[in-house]
Amino acid sequence: MDRALLVIGSVAYDTVETPSGSVDDALGGSALYASAAASLFVPVHLVGVVGTDFRIDDLDFMRQRRVDLGGLEVADGRTFRWSGVYEANLNVRHTRSTHLNVFADFSPRLPDGYRSDSVIFLGNIAPTLQAHVLDQLREPRWVALDTMDLWINTARGELEKVMTRVQMIIVNDAEARLLSGESNLVLAARRLMAMGPAAVVIKKGEHGVFLVTNDGYAALPALPILSVIDPTGAGDSFAGGMLGAIAASRDWSFAGLRRAMAYGTATASLAVESFSLDGLRTATRLMLEERYRWLRDIADIPEPVRADGGVHAGPNA
Amino acid sequence: MDRALLVIGSVAYDTVETPSGSVDDALGGSALYASAAASLFVPVHLVGVVGTDFRIDDLDFMRQRRVDLGGLEVADGRTFRWSGVYEANLNVRHTRSTHLNVFADFSPRLPDGYRSDSVIFLGNIAPTLQAHVLDQLREPRWVALDTMDLWINTARGELEKVMTRVQMIIVNDAEARLLSGESNLVLAARRLMAMGPAAVVIKKGEHGVFLVTNDGYAALPALPILSVIDPTGAGDSFAGGMLGAIAASRDWSFAGLRRAMAYGTATASLAVESFSLDGLRTATRLMLEERYRWLRDIADIPEPVRADGGVHAGPNA
Repeated sequence: MDRALLVIGSVAYDTVETPSGSVDDALGGSALYASAAASLFVPVHLVGVVGTDFRIDDLDFMRQRRVDLGGLEVADGRTFRWSGVYEANLNVRHTRSTHLNVFADFSPRLPDGYRSDSVIFLGNIAPTLQAHVLDQLREPRWVALDTMDLWINTARGELEKVMTRVQMIIVNDAEARLLSGESNLVLAARRLMAMGPAAVVIKKGEHGVFLVTNDGYAALPALPILSVIDPTGAGDSFAGGMLGAIAASRDWSFAGLRRAMAYGTATASLAVESFSLDGLRTATRLMLEERYRWLRDIADIPEPVRADGGVHAGPNA
Repeated sequence: MDRALLVIGSVAYDTVETPSGSVDDALGGSALYASAAASLFVPVHLVGVVGTDFRIDDLDFMRQRRVDLGGLEVADGRTFRWSGVYEANLNVRHTRSTHLNVFADFSPRLPDGYRSDSVIFLGNIAPTLQAHVLDQLREPRWVALDTMDLWINTARGELEKVMTRVQMIIVNDAEARLLSGESNLVLAARRLMAMGPAAVVIKKGEHGVFLVTNDGYAALPALPILSVIDPTGAGDSFAGGMLGAIAASRDWSFAGLRRAMAYGTATASLAVESFSLDGLRTATRLMLEERYRWLRDIADIPEPVRADGGVHAGPNA
């Protein structure tokens, strides 16, 4: 049983400025963040495209963590580039520039060894490309889909078709509202389920994340990170961590998804403490387990003490 | 040992329009919401002011729940009135009008029987009035303070003085940022602690609530209420439920505060399902216990299964 996770998405050079500093042409993109995150749990099959300017050796740390680069195409031209700046309130981000470069003509082609993968993360790329990946798979079992406002606004029909073919969608709160047309996030999640996915995960950044399936509702806070250096890739790190945990356990029961969601939260918390992939590069499985336990501590609600439901008398009575 | 909670705040007639309908001159105000909520846990000593137009019989349901109205002054003039409208996205509220009326000249005077109260909720009124209440208390043990942007902007000095005299502050996220000058909410909470209170509770509406003390950090989601009819008073209902639980247990240990915070969350979830005080009026202790259990279910994070920290193999392996 191969427990690899297949990841498709963008591979980018990011130029990012935050109140803590800046980086130029640093490793980024949804596929790299998600792969680096997932590789803390399982081998990863990475599908993407870079230009001839890409320094492939920069991915050695991922290779060492069993990220297979056989699906990473090198195309003539320059690598996808994104540049953005964060305000002092890190929830506010402005894009300075986006250059698709080789990404503009990308058509993902899966190496034959990837076509039997059964747990898949379709990172944020055009829905037609996401569908093209699904077409090449022999027996997908748990496919998770990410998307963004651009595709919701410009390719809704294609996106809705892909949604009927996946088991889970992972979006942020603004995307959930835009895609569902519903402002109450719980109702929004229900509408997204009606469009196909059995599980809906809504990311809310510093406010945590929640999951809705037909088996119930689960909500987790974010970890209280005092030093957020660079929020870029937090959502992809969350998704990579969550899907990595699912690929490792092959447990997509409600309990399994909750556990995986907590691992995703732990993974994202490590990613945002450094620029680019540095937080995920230096992360270890032990650190993830520590954060998992920390998250359980934070989210714990004590039992009511008296069996009759009364509030008990405490030490200051 | 008298386990009453002392509540000071506004008593109002609210005219409210939401996407679900509207009410005119309905019971409202921070003191009424908080008292109705707290009375699900303990007797309440209510301090406030109404005009001669106030229909005191409308509070019979609270009297039956052991809310003492001996501190409710009837002054010449009209009762405080507030009017507001909510957008389809209930997070956006517009105030149409505020008429302080008898509230403008209010100076809270505690009946002698209230001066020995030890658990106190200083609802959102002018900091000088909050201080005036504290001056009249013989031995306050656990005082919780609410405030709003108006006082932060116009009476910061007085507010900061009150903060040095209380054990807990309960504010929403925008107020926490404004009062602390810090956008990271965890850092904001730390700064508020440095200003006096040993415990800081930050309310985030649909995103839940979190608590910071020197003993740790705790975060709870909101309950996934599908039918939010009227969010007015949600924060005061939360505070009243939380303080009521604290007054009942007299447990202000970290665990006790966490438990009380979950009761506050449960209480607020019942309040927003109806207009005005109707949700709190029809609420029962049994309903609160059910919501408490529901909240524990939602917030639960399963243990990692393998003792070595690995992700276990699940049912789909």
